Amino acid sequence: MLEKIKTPKDVKRLSITQLQELAEDVRKRIIKVTAKTGGHVAPSLGATDLAIALLKMFDPLEDRIVWDVGHQSYAYKILTERNEQFETLRQFGGLSGFNNIFESEYDSFGVGHASTSISAALGIAVAKEMKGENGRTIAVIGDGALTGGMSFEALNHTGHLQKNIIVVLNDNNFSISKNVGALQSHLTNMLVSKPYNATKSLIYDFVQHLPHRIRRRVILSARTLEENMVHTLAPNIIFEDLGFKYLGPIDGHDIPRMIRIFHKIKINLTGPILMHIVTQKGKGYEYAEDDAARFHGLGPYEIETGKSKKKKGETYSKVFGNTLCEIAEKNKNVVAITAAMTDGTGLAEFAEKFPDKFFDVAIAEQHAVTFAGGLAVQGIKPFVAIYSTFLQRALDQVIHDIALQKLPVVFCLDRAGLVGDDGATHHGVFDLSYLNLIPGLLILIPANAEELAAMLEFAAEYKDGPIVIRYPRGCAKYLNKKIKPIEIGKSVIVHKGKDVAIIGVGKAMEDAEIVYNELKDKLPNIDPYLINPRFLKPLDVNLFNDLEKKVHTIITIEDNALIGGFGDTVKSYCSNTNIKVFSFGIPDEFIEHGTVDQLKNMIGITPKKITKEIISILK
Amino acid sequence: MLEKIKTPKDVKRLSITQLQELAEDVRKRIIKVTAKTGGHVAPSLGATDLAIALLKMFDPLEDRIVWDVGHQSYAYKILTERNEQFETLRQFGGLSGFNNIFESEYDSFGVGHASTSISAALGIAVAKEMKGENGRTIAVIGDGALTGGMSFEALNHTGHLQKNIIVVLNDNNFSISKNVGALQSHLTNMLVSKPYNATKSLIYDFVQHLPHRIRRRVILSARTLEENMVHTLAPNIIFEDLGFKYLGPIDGHDIPRMIRIFHKIKINLTGPILMHIVTQKGKGYEYAEDDAARFHGLGPYEIETGKSKKKKGETYSKVFGNTLCEIAEKNKNVVAITAAMTDGTGLAEFAEKFPDKFFDVAIAEQHAVTFAGGLAVQGIKPFVAIYSTFLQRALDQVIHDIALQKLPVVFCLDRAGLVGDDGATHHGVFDLSYLNLIPGLLILIPANAEELAAMLEFAAEYKDGPIVIRYPRGCAKYLNKKIKPIEIGKSVIVHKGKDVAIIGVGKAMEDAEIVYNELKDKLPNIDPYLINPRFLKPLDVNLFNDLEKKVHTIITIEDNALIGGFGDTVKSYCSNTNIKVFSFGIPDEFIEHGTVDQLKNMIGITPKKITKEIISILK
Repeated sequence: MLEKIKTPKDVKRLSITQLQELAEDVRKRIIKVTAKTGGHVAPSLGATDLAIALLKMFDPLEDRIVWDVGHQSYAYKILTERNEQFETLRQFGGLSGFNNIFESEYDSFGVGHASTSISAALGIAVAKEMKGENGRTIAVIGDGALTGGMSFEALNHTGHLQKNIIVVLNDNNFSISKNVGALQSHLTNMLVSKPYNATKSLIYDFVQHLPHRIRRRVILSARTLEENMVHTLAPNIIFEDLGFKYLGPIDGHDIPRMIRIFHKIKINLTGPILMHIVTQKGKGYEYAEDDAARFHGLGPYEIETGKSKKKKGETYSKVFGNTLCEIAEKNKNVVAITAAMTDGTGLAEFAEKFPDKFFDVAIAEQHAVTFAGGLAVQGIKPFVAIYSTFLQRALDQVIHDIALQKLPVVFCLDRAGLVGDDGATHHGVFDLSYLNLIPGLLILIPANAEELAAMLEFAAEYKDGPIVIRYPRGCAKYLNKKIKPIEIGKSVIVHKGKDVAIIGVGKAMEDAEIVYNELKDKLPNIDPYLINPRFLKPLDVNLFNDLEKKVHTIITIEDNALIGGFGDTVKSYCSNTNIKVFSFGIPDEFIEHGTVDQLKNMIGITPKKITKEIISILK
Repeated sequence: MLEKIKTPKDVKRLSITQLQELAEDVRKRIIKVTAKTGGHVAPSLGATDLAIALLKMFDPLEDRIVWDVGHQSYAYKILTERNEQFETLRQFGGLSGFNNIFESEYDSFGVGHASTSISAALGIAVAKEMKGENGRTIAVIGDGALTGGMSFEALNHTGHLQKNIIVVLNDNNFSISKNVGALQSHLTNMLVSKPYNATKSLIYDFVQHLPHRIRRRVILSARTLEENMVHTLAPNIIFEDLGFKYLGPIDGHDIPRMIRIFHKIKINLTGPILMHIVTQKGKGYEYAEDDAARFHGLGPYEIETGKSKKKKGETYSKVFGNTLCEIAEKNKNVVAITAAMTDGTGLAEFAEKFPDKFFDVAIAEQHAVTFAGGLAVQGIKPFVAIYSTFLQRALDQVIHDIALQKLPVVFCLDRAGLVGDDGATHHGVFDLSYLNLIPGLLILIPANAEELAAMLEFAAEYKDGPIVIRYPRGCAKYLNKKIKPIEIGKSVIVHKGKDVAIIGVGKAMEDAEIVYNELKDKLPNIDPYLINPRFLKPLDVNLFNDLEKKVHTIITIEDNALIGGFGDTVKSYCSNTNIKVFSFGIPDEFIEHGTVDQLKNMIGITPKKITKEIISILK
């Protein structure tokens, strides 16, 4: 059936049976491609039927659809003129893993981080009204993303404005890892409220079998009846308090049922509507259904077994998780906090071993940070594990609730630097810049597994204020030897040379070593320093004061933005010396997706290109 | 009565009548002092009775009280051993206008920005439980602060964990300017539900008059009855959906009633409790009651008339508001967005003239930004007016939802730089640093009223991406002459000299002029450049390429953090030239409160001190 779909208009022509066949085809296509490319398999399989029902009933160019996060929109991509390109998913130059307004006119708003869809949809709806344009605006949001505070801000404002918005709550009771929070319990309670659902199904079936001519009037009455039922049988509907008409719960894999509801909405309802559908993450692929956490987002896998293709070694996340377990064995005051990323941040083992000291706060980075502040002010030692790109959500809380009060909270920033195939929305390339400005914060950057472990031990003992430790996605480099102890603001001089100093920040130390060796090879009369700075803040000023007497040129390599990053910090410190500083890092632009090596090559910061440029600088 | 209170323990000894007298005394004290110092008068008058009831029933060292924002905690400050110092409120070296853990052990968590209290209280409660400590944890939050998303994140997590927390919702139906949002309508509906309140009052009065020995049992039954009532008479209680026990609405000026409820909570209730009190902003001072918006936060005023002491001139906020009205007359696509700061940002006139194009989204900066993104993606031109310090809340949204999509949203950042008496939590000294890292963003900094107006006109026409315009608190400087048109990335060379260039960023241009004149006076053989850069981003590279041939030293003066600010940007750009760059700005520490001049003097960036340092540099 899929081969018949050239544009989304073709979906509108299909019968219910054909739509169901189409859903099968689309799922097969998603599995076939993601088995090679990796991706967000389980969310997209779960939302396939919804995508089809939406395209049957709405026109995605006139009606605007905003997919929250966008990792569930593969079916939508396939059906909106991107089936042919779908094999390029998350590949360099290929389709993005999320929605992107520059990729397709069918994508009405770019996404990647959670909880933005209702805000964006409200803006779109208001704009359409101002411009006198037709069409509905639809936000599709998961129950996980709904826990993010800005969703609530948007619900509150939408309920107030009473604009025409349909919020489809795609409830898989799952979030990214297992969902938490009172709201979730509440939703679950509604779902298991059997009398409510049974009665509702009965009404819908009854209405469905009525002659077409009177159906409309009955549906209208049914709505009133349903609304009364909602109050009677499931009285605590949070959404109605916020000014939404609530419809649900509805089986999100029942295409004809969803179509009927959308039809009903189109002909009868205005104002903010919340349609609550229930789906299964990974639907239609048994391995993804059984292990939806792993299949939330993963690399290439074997279709026949569901097994992930082997990785090369132990990740920094794993080093973090293991070390934190060791620290917690010794230090009873240590707790770990994650914002719905138990597995991703490497905290699964900690969660199992120390359930009373583990807090998954849901997708709620702002709360995570200030909650840690409350713990710390009472003498508890919180380790807050958040991806670099997601801590952007909580800058104010880090400044205002933690640093200003000198609270000894430890922020463990995973996925710092270029993350590869998740692309522009997920690269952790701004953290050094937006954190360096915070007074009293220590910023540590490990260059290998042993250093990460030692920095965590250091942080566990440190009492004078907050600490950030930022480390990259992927496999950790092991030195397999004892390292020098961590001292505040002290670098490691790996090789003491003269004339030139090469500084590799964190993971970039691996490239710095290659550059160092190539330079020695190609310019045998030069003996460069090789330095691992360990700290951005405080900067090792003794080192730079020493270097002033020894070198004329400093080269910095980092995977952070050049603006405000390590290189800029060195430039600022050395601005009134005679040292020239050349920095290599992320230029002032958004970087797309691709492998990290492809991206570094595009930017011009592979060891080879850096070496070439240094040689030309030194000449 | 107030003179009898040496420590909060003394409050516990007072009778109800004495407590009511105390409330009168405290209010008089607040009015007397704030008439001289200025401050958040109306919120603190509104929460005086609550503070007294809390101190009667709880021990603020064992039970921990977190005041959201803290601008309503003056009574609490006065009664917790800070009455004598109260006259130093918001003065340099004196008491902070908010709560501060370094100021008093009675302040359990530092505050200033909205919506943090429930998160902090939850952390404190969990920590107390881990450490086996006694006492309750109480968060006092206004209905305005409750609209901030992180409050919802915290409610959701608290409901899930079911820890012992009392959230006192101080509902004055006001926020900072008039409150908005569906939640607010919902709360208001509850309040006007007369049968509910009448029945409740009856029960409480009945219970109060029972003999002490059986009262407890009756209260227990009453609770069950009340819970049923809540469902029957006010069925949509959002807080119960989130796992809270709901008590209210209660008159927040009825001290004995609040004491009874707190008593009931202490003896009977565990888990998360939401106690909904209703107060009047400005209570007890007629001028503050009548004009609560102005009395939310204001400068010195006359007690007898309530009139504000005269200001010197027109503020930048006013220039912004006036200009935006003019722009909106011409450009039908222009809309204005504020996060509960209609008056503060100067948008009151716009709101009145263009009600359909004005959006107050409540205290919800994250939503404000992404909502603007939704509008912009459909061709509307949003101007988002947010204080510099509050945009810290929405860094991720500016990056991810606006800049990444190149959407032409205009951010108008009021209160940039040192704000004076609101202190460390409110200085807007980080914005240039955390915004400069964002690809594709234009950052404009007007140095006078005419320039702000011209930049707004420029921004209204600009279509290629987002723009930030940041300007300070207080009176605008008028040049009273025609200025050069705004061109992207182009500075204004006010005086073309040689050897040295003095660059004053925005408001700091006023100081730069003084420095320039003093230098000419004291070093007559020097002829410095005087430059107004207008843009941080894009940097005027042509200017700096020219300067390379003309000067050996550049002096930058700004009211942003030195780290990552304008000076650092110039240092980075000039790092491989022979120019030495010396920058003056906010050092790497949190700056307390005081007048801007006092703070600049403390930091060492008055024109006099800068001149002295430049002379020593040039020698």
